[in-house]
Formats: sequence, structure tokens, C-alpha cells
Amino acid sequence: MAKQFYAKRDLQFQLYEMLHAEQLTKLAYFKDHSRESFDMVIDAAGQIADSLLKPLLTEMDRNEPQLVNGTIQIHPGMQAIIKRFGDDGWINAGFSYDEGGQQIPQTVMNAATFIFQAANYSSSVFPFLTAGAANLLRSFGSQDLINTFTPNMYAGVWQGTMALTEPDAGSSLSDITTAAEATDTEGTYKIKGQKIYISAGDHDCCENVVHLMLAKIKGAPLGAKGISLFVVPKKRLTTNGLQPNDVLTAGVYHKMGYKGAPIAHLMVGSNDDCEGYLVGQPNKGLNYMFQMMNEARVGVGMNAAAIGTAAYYASLEYARERPQGRPINEKDPTKPQTHIIRHADVKRMLLFQKSVVEGSLSLLLYCSKLSDVAHAGSDNQKAEASLLLDLLTPVAKSYPSEMCCLTTSAAVQILGGAGYTTDFPVEQFYREARIHPIHEGTTGIHGLDLLGRKVMMKNGEALALLSNAIVQTIGEAQQIEKTRPLALQLETALDDLGKTTKHLLTLASQDTEVFLSDATLYLEFFGLVTIGWQWLSMALVAQRNLADATSQADIYFYNGKLATARYYFEYELVKVASLSARLTSTDTVTIDMDANWF
Amino acid sequence: MAKQFYAKRDLQFQLYEMLHAEQLTKLAYFKDHSRESFDMVIDAAGQIADSLLKPLLTEMDRNEPQLVNGTIQIHPGMQAIIKRFGDDGWINAGFSYDEGGQQIPQTVMNAATFIFQAANYSSSVFPFLTAGAANLLRSFGSQDLINTFTPNMYAGVWQGTMALTEPDAGSSLSDITTAAEATDTEGTYKIKGQKIYISAGDHDCCENVVHLMLAKIKGAPLGAKGISLFVVPKKRLTTNGLQPNDVLTAGVYHKMGYKGAPIAHLMVGSNDDCEGYLVGQPNKGLNYMFQMMNEARVGVGMNAAAIGTAAYYASLEYARERPQGRPINEKDPTKPQTHIIRHADVKRMLLFQKSVVEGSLSLLLYCSKLSDVAHAGSDNQKAEASLLLDLLTPVAKSYPSEMCCLTTSAAVQILGGAGYTTDFPVEQFYREARIHPIHEGTTGIHGLDLLGRKVMMKNGEALALLSNAIVQTIGEAQQIEKTRPLALQLETALDDLGKTTKHLLTLASQDTEVFLSDATLYLEFFGLVTIGWQWLSMALVAQRNLADATSQADIYFYNGKLATARYYFEYELVKVASLSARLTSTDTVTIDMDANWF
Repeated sequence: MAKQFYAKRDLQFQLYEMLHAEQLTKLAYFKDHSRESFDMVIDAAGQIADSLLKPLLTEMDRNEPQLVNGTIQIHPGMQAIIKRFGDDGWINAGFSYDEGGQQIPQTVMNAATFIFQAANYSSSVFPFLTAGAANLLRSFGSQDLINTFTPNMYAGVWQGTMALTEPDAGSSLSDITTAAEATDTEGTYKIKGQKIYISAGDHDCCENVVHLMLAKIKGAPLGAKGISLFVVPKKRLTTNGLQPNDVLTAGVYHKMGYKGAPIAHLMVGSNDDCEGYLVGQPNKGLNYMFQMMNEARVGVGMNAAAIGTAAYYASLEYARERPQGRPINEKDPTKPQTHIIRHADVKRMLLFQKSVVEGSLSLLLYCSKLSDVAHAGSDNQKAEASLLLDLLTPVAKSYPSEMCCLTTSAAVQILGGAGYTTDFPVEQFYREARIHPIHEGTTGIHGLDLLGRKVMMKNGEALALLSNAIVQTIGEAQQIEKTRPLALQLETALDDLGKTTKHLLTLASQDTEVFLSDATLYLEFFGLVTIGWQWLSMALVAQRNLADATSQADIYFYNGKLATARYYFEYELVKVASLSARLTSTDTVTIDMDANWF
Repeated sequence: MAKQFYAKRDLQFQLYEMLHAEQLTKLAYFKDHSRESFDMVIDAAGQIADSLLKPLLTEMDRNEPQLVNGTIQIHPGMQAIIKRFGDDGWINAGFSYDEGGQQIPQTVMNAATFIFQAANYSSSVFPFLTAGAANLLRSFGSQDLINTFTPNMYAGVWQGTMALTEPDAGSSLSDITTAAEATDTEGTYKIKGQKIYISAGDHDCCENVVHLMLAKIKGAPLGAKGISLFVVPKKRLTTNGLQPNDVLTAGVYHKMGYKGAPIAHLMVGSNDDCEGYLVGQPNKGLNYMFQMMNEARVGVGMNAAAIGTAAYYASLEYARERPQGRPINEKDPTKPQTHIIRHADVKRMLLFQKSVVEGSLSLLLYCSKLSDVAHAGSDNQKAEASLLLDLLTPVAKSYPSEMCCLTTSAAVQILGGAGYTTDFPVEQFYREARIHPIHEGTTGIHGLDLLGRKVMMKNGEALALLSNAIVQTIGEAQQIEKTRPLALQLETALDDLGKTTKHLLTLASQDTEVFLSDATLYLEFFGLVTIGWQWLSMALVAQRNLADATSQADIYFYNGKLATARYYFEYELVKVASLSARLTSTDTVTIDMDANWF
């Protein structure tokens, strides 16, 4: 089993050298914090990941959840993990003091979460699903609902979920049919329907499960405008304590990876005895959900990057230790074999992984800081940060999700035959990474979101903000000899993206189908430029800080950043040429293709 | 479970409209055959695949081989399958009448094998490993060895394997340490060593296992020049019948996919009682092995394309049946949902799969025909076909292997959450496809083979032959309005490949490490152009035959080919721009990267 699964040094680089996270403490909401308190959070996460999460990585994969007598049994080790997350206050750590939280910035929380995810993805989702559900409730629920449900959720005694998908409504959420009928008690509804693919939707390591569920109140408007949000607990609180609430677990999904987490199929109100409690106003459910979903989407990007990081370090360790072959100019078979890390092609595969996972982490923590500023900054700061975050969310979700399928594949390839066996963890990472382009909105959906909504929102204000930020980095990088070539290349790519965007927006008024038909490729293009920007920023910081570096470790670290930036520009950013060629072509083959021709 | 897993119509198109396979019957060796006899082979394969192989696809994945009391137990259903392959003469069908074979062309055999592979990859490898081993034996072994071993192999009673890899010698085969020591009996050696990752290396559905094993005779030259080939049976033939030959099964590998096939770890001669029989001359083992390996490599490309094909049809079936969302210009939620095959992004993912799997199949059957001509053609034909086949083998192995990891991923994506569950076969295809870039030479090794040896062999004669063939197709396609734009694009790409090759060959004399550092990318470039050529050929044939097509099915079929060619040129071939940019860059970042900087 690989020893290293994340790099604390890189997290510090991101938090303090790139983002200057300590400056967040100048905002009133975070004023009690300091770099020291941030470091304590990161260290505490590392300690839990090492001692509790990592040891169960393989075991949880090999012992999938099973449905037994109507309840999903999960790995018994999760009991201690969930309790620990509750006891140590991880679930509501970012919430306000009033709510029992610690007002820790999202930037720091996400850096800590990243460590959990890299250690054991399946185990990391339980507390953070609860946090997401609790966040919805505290943001939009009545004080009564908050008081009833959140304390046990914060304590890790009750599990939280987000229950959206139905058999006939996945990407098309407006088609849900789960029904809510008002009762005599105000705010209480009878719920009836089915929900599928509900993560942590049922398990035996918590006393109760609290679903934040989408349903349609009878008589509501059709489509997305008629969706409401409800709290639907597995067991409801009665004068006789917790009693069944007619939420039955019909099945547990068996999956390619991500096996430790129970994904449930729920039958809701089959016996007409399921109570749900309306959260906020009727018919606003999708709005509420999407406000939280954006956070979840950055979280998914984080998960993907974390799995990619664990795979990167596993393959790096193997490459350092595995002797095979000789340097390419060495023909003498009496010479000992060299470690494969000396082969250019293996270094290429390592650089590929490093460029993607560190580039992703950089963007994701940047987005996390936007989220902190959007929450606790001045009004001006809030508006700007929210806009940028809105624009970048589909990219921050999709780039890591798509690319870490490929980086985990590179990790497998470095190990060769060994990588395909279950003797090493990389095959598990390869399987686990594959969920991310699917859940919390498929890549296709995010492409439509980016090109169809985000790029044009507020007359393109968000896009202008981002372009300005990139142009500023380019300007700085042009002043330095080492980064100048990269700056020029990014300038061209950004220009290309601008032209492509303009071309596509012209189509928007002519034919929506043509306009959006390659939105997925546009998202890829956008991602390449955005991550190029992150690498240019990292190269700039590394170049500056290398000058003052004294320790050998720091010198290695900064040189690694500079070389990886070069790799990214040489091998990855060049791909924009092919994408812009396609995106500006007039051939509409994917539209013209008739279903009968397949 | 998906119903369709291959397209007989496409096989017919490839065999008869593209390759004119019936013309092979003009060669003396194939003279007893006809299109009718070829079709009988294809139909027989389809019948076995449907009735025996396909039904075990999922079961064999869920019930992995296990090592029990020193023997690997496989799925009991394999007994009937192996027997059937033996009884029906599949194992030696391509061999001469003298050898009990039927002199069926490789082109037809590979088309039939493709059906087996698409039905159930794991089950398909048993007979074909036996065929490969028998082929080695009959090509280079003494008549005595042939008489002793091959009849039972042809009958499917004894399993054959290729035993190359050792714990310290995978990609670097010259470092094997398995030792052979001469005995008093000429040709008989004592063998001692370890072999790992031996496919079908042991199992309980055959009476014996016959390993074609690489070992070094004591005192032999160092490195690759000292490797010899031996027959090492699990049980040796004595006057008392079959007796143990000190080949012990130390373990069975558990793997991400391809689970139905037992991959063994063998301890050979641990008790100094293992006999091996020299095949051919001493120290020629690697040469012998590589002659056969080339066939195996085309076979691996075939496996990859077959798995990709099965995944394509599974996702196509789902896309036709799954309602979700509405046409992009339809906002009315009262309208019924549309099948997802109507969404441009889903069609893009289907076209991607179709373009890769049909383009691969086209190249692979083209290579199979080269193999037939190299075997049975006139001397001139033989020389030319052999050269082309040598050049194309790394491409035919690697393009399908690498790309079908991505196409099976697209299949998963089309199914969304359902695709990630074990309720549908696509996740299995995704796992199974991942072995192919690894075995029979990793993609990196094939890149080195292509750029470091094949492109330059015989002063570039092979490359010139291929270029001429491509130029001829371009010339024909330029005459037709529909295919002219594709022809022009391929001409540019070919020109680009030529320039890039020239640039790299200039480096060859300066610095071998720099020259070969991006050989994997060069292979990718070469593959894109080669498959582009296949698609241009297919478009040409489709365009011609569409004119005479009368049935609706044929009109759909040819239109599908033409649209997929367009897709390939618009979305895939454009990628050469980025590759040539990188391959002609002077930045040597993967070489410069220091191992300490990771």
C-alpha cells in the first residue's frame, strides 16, 4: 500500500503562498482565526485521515454495503469515523458560533476535506453529505425545523442526504413526480414517490437519516417551477420517540467503485404514512437546492482531484522503487536496471498527473476562497466573488472530474500489469474516479450551464471579470524571463477562447441547438485555459519564492512547480488548437446524424 | 443486459466491400474457400458467441478464479466452451490441412474471433492462447515436439500459454533469470525460475497446461541474445502417463477486470524436477517469440475493439430507450420527454465510439489480410505485406487499446448513474478495456518500437509503402465531391506527420533520449492519421455503394458510415494539430524533470 496520498507542502503552498489565506482573518467573520488555527485544522485532518480513514480504504472497497432486513449494512468501521467527525465538530465547523460552529473559512475546510477524500473517498462522504443537508436546512428552514433536526446532524448521530433523482428524472429534474399533499398540520405534508441513487440514503451507523427531498405539492405549476423542498426523515420524532416514517429502502446499488458508500433506492410513502416538512416557501425547492448544489459541485471537483492525488503518489512511489530497463543510451546488459522514474515516458505520465491534480487543487481552493469572500466580504467583494464563483463552478466541477479519470489511468499504466491487479490501490482509484463526471450534474449538463447560462449572465460580466484576472496574471508573468513564454502562450489561448466564445454567441441567436451542440468541448477548452492560468500563477509564485528558498526541499519543490507548468503548457494547453478548430467549424454532424444511422 | 454486441453488417462491409476477402481464394493456399465458406465461419462464431459465451459474461466477472489446493478453479462453464472450441476445430482452423487445419484465412478467423471477444472477452482468450502457443511450436519446434504436444492442444484438451514475464522482467524481457540447464537427454533441460502474469497459466478445465516459456541456458550470452524458448508442460508425459513436472501455481492474480481468465504466478522447478524441451535453436527464443507476438498484438487490438464494440451497442441500446429531457428548443414541460439519442451531446458520444471501434476494426482486418498475403501471396506480395504489417502492428495494437478505454468511458457516461452500477454491462467493459494498453507490450513500448525501429527500418521503405497507399486513397477521394474535403484534410495531416517524422529523425542522430522521449505521442499521431485513412476509405466505399443501395437498412448503414467519417475528421483527426505542435517543440521538460522535483 502506498504511503503518501497527499502533499502537505503543496497545501501550504496553495493556502499561504498562492491564496494568502491568512488575509481572510481580516474579515470580521473570520477574525478569531490565524494561520496557526488554520494549520491546526489541516494537521487534525491529517491525523484522522492517517489513523482512521486510510486503513479502511481497501477493506471498504472489498466489503460492499448490503441490504439486510430492510436496512443497509455498511462497513462497521464507519461507526467510529462518523462519531469522530461529529465529536470533533467537523460537520458544522464552517457554521457560525450561534449554530455551534467555529466559523472556519471554506478555504481551510476544503483543504482539510481534501485530505479525507484522498485517504478514503467513500468514508469521506458521510459527514459532508450531512453538512450539506444541514446547510440547506439552516439556510432556508424554519427555526423549528432547524432546532428539531440540526443538533443531531451536527453531532453525527443523524445522517443527512440530498434526495433529488428519481427513476424518470435524473438530468431532467423538472420531471420528478414525488408528490406532497398538505395535511391539517401547517408545514406538514404526506410524501409519496421513489428516489434513486441517494448517497448515504440509508445505513446502520446512524440512528436516523434526514433526507432533504425534492417533491411537487399537488396542484403546483408544471416543471421546475413547481418543485418544493422537504425534510423527510427516515424516522420521525413522536411523543414516543423515533418512529418509522414510511421511508423504505428498496435496494442498495452495487457499483464499479466508490463501493464503501451506500447508494440507496428509497420507496417513500408506499403505505401513505410518510411525513415531510416543507423547507422555506412552496415551489422554491429547486432554487434552494441549487444554491447548495454549487458548493457540492466544488466538492465533487475536490473529490476527483483528491483521488487523482492519491493515485499520483501511489504511482510516484512505485516509479521510484521499481527497477526496469536501462537508460535509453545504455545498451550494456551487465549494468543494473534503472528505476523507471528515470524514463522520459514515465516522467511524462507523472507530470501529466501532477499538472492535473495540482492545477485542479489550485482552482478549487481559489473557488473556495471566492466562496468565503462571497459569504463574509464587503458588499462589493461579495458581488464580484459570487459572480466569478458562479462562472467557475462548472469548470471546477468538470475539469478535475474528467481529467482525473485520465490521470488515474496514467497511474495504472505506470504500474503496468501490477497496476491492473488488486495488489495495488491504483485500480481502485481508477474505478472510483469514474463516478465524478456523472454525479452532481454530468459533464454534458455543466457544458450547457457554462455556455448556455454562465458565459452570458449579466451581459458577460462574469466572463469579463475572469478575463481581467487572467490578463493581470499574464501581465505579471511577462515581466519575468522564465515565465514570459508561458504568458505569451496563455495570452494566445485566451484570445482564442474569446474568439471562439464570440463565434458561438453569434450562433446563439440563430439556432440554439447548433449553439449548444458542442458545449462539452467548450467546457473542455475553458477548463484548459483556466487551469493554464492557475499554472501560470503557480509558476510566478514559485519563481519568486525560489529566489529566497534556502532548504533543499523548497528548492526541489519550486523547481517541480516550474517544470510542471512547462509540462502543462507544452502538452496540455496546446490542445486548445484542436478544440477551437472544431468549435469554429460549420459542420453540424452531431445534429445531422440520424438515430437510424447508428 | 444489452442484446446486440457486434454488427454482422459491419463485418460484411469490412470483409467484402472494403477488403474483398473473397479474392484471397485466388491464392493457392486458400483455393478451397469461397465467400460462402467464409460466411459459414462467421455465422458459426455468432452462434457459439450467442449460445455459450455471452450468457457467461457477467457470471464470469462475478465469480473470479480461485487457487484451491494448488490448482486454479475457473468458472465451470468454461469446460464446455473449451471443449466446443476444440471439437469444432477453432484452435487450428487457420493451420494447413497437413496439420489437421482448414487453411482458413486470418482475415476470416479474426473477424470470427472478434465476435467471441465482443461476447465475452475472458472466455475468448483460452482457445486463442492455445492457438498462439501451438503456432510457435509448429513453426519452430521439432517434429517430435509437434507430435507430442499439438494434437491435444488442437483438441482443446491441453491449454497453451506464452510464459515470458518474471518479477524483475516485464517490459525489459532481456533481464529474465529463469535458468535452463542441459541434461543427458538432448533437447531436454532442467528449468528453474518464476513466471508471473501468465494468462490461462493454470486451470481446472484442461488436462494439462503447455507453457511456451523463455529461459536462459546456463552460459548463454547476456541480455536478449541469450534467451531460448522451451516447451514446459505442467505435467510431463511419462511411460506412466501424465506426471507432475514441478510447475507449481503459487498464486492467481485478482484484477480490476478480465476476471474470468486465470492469470497465474508460477514457480518452475522449485524442487529441481522441471523438464523443459528446447524449441528450435538455443538463444533464438526472443526472435521466435516476437514473430508470434506480432500476431498476438493484432489480437490484442482486436480484443480492445471488440470490448469497445460491445460497449458501443450497449450504450446505443440505452440511448434509444431512455427518455430524459426535451429537445433543446422545447421548453414546454407538458410535452413528453425525448429519448436521449436525440440530444446532440449523446450522439457525439455515440459517434465517438462508432468512429473508434469501426475505424479500429477496419485497420485490424486490413492487417489480418496483410498477414494472409504475407503467408500465402507471391514472393513480391509477401515482402510488401510483411513490411506494411510490421510497421502497422504497433498502431493496430495501441490505437484500439488506448482509445477503447475512452470509448467504454463514453458508454458509461451515456448511461449516467446507471452506467456506474453493476446493473448494466458497461462498467465491466470499462474495467476490461483497461488491460489492453498494458499487455503484449505497453503503449510506451510500442511507441518506441514504431519510432525507434519501424519507421526507419529498411531505410523507411515501410513508411513509404504506407504513405503511398494513403496518398492513393486521398487521390481517389478527391475525385468525389462528398469525400473531397476529408481527402484534403487527410492530405494535410499526412504532410504534417511526414514533417514531424523528419524533424524527429534529425534528432535521432543527435540525442537518442530526446528523439524518443515523446514516442508515445508520435504513436498517437500516427494512429490518428492511419485511422483517418481507414475512415476515408470507408467513406469512399460507402459513397459508391450508397448509389446502388436499395434496402432502407443499407441506405441507413452507408449514411451512418459517411456521417461517422465526418465526425472522425471534425473531432478526432483535428487533434494532430496539438500533437505536431508538441512533437516539434524544443522544450525537453520530461527529460529535464529531476526525480527529486516530483
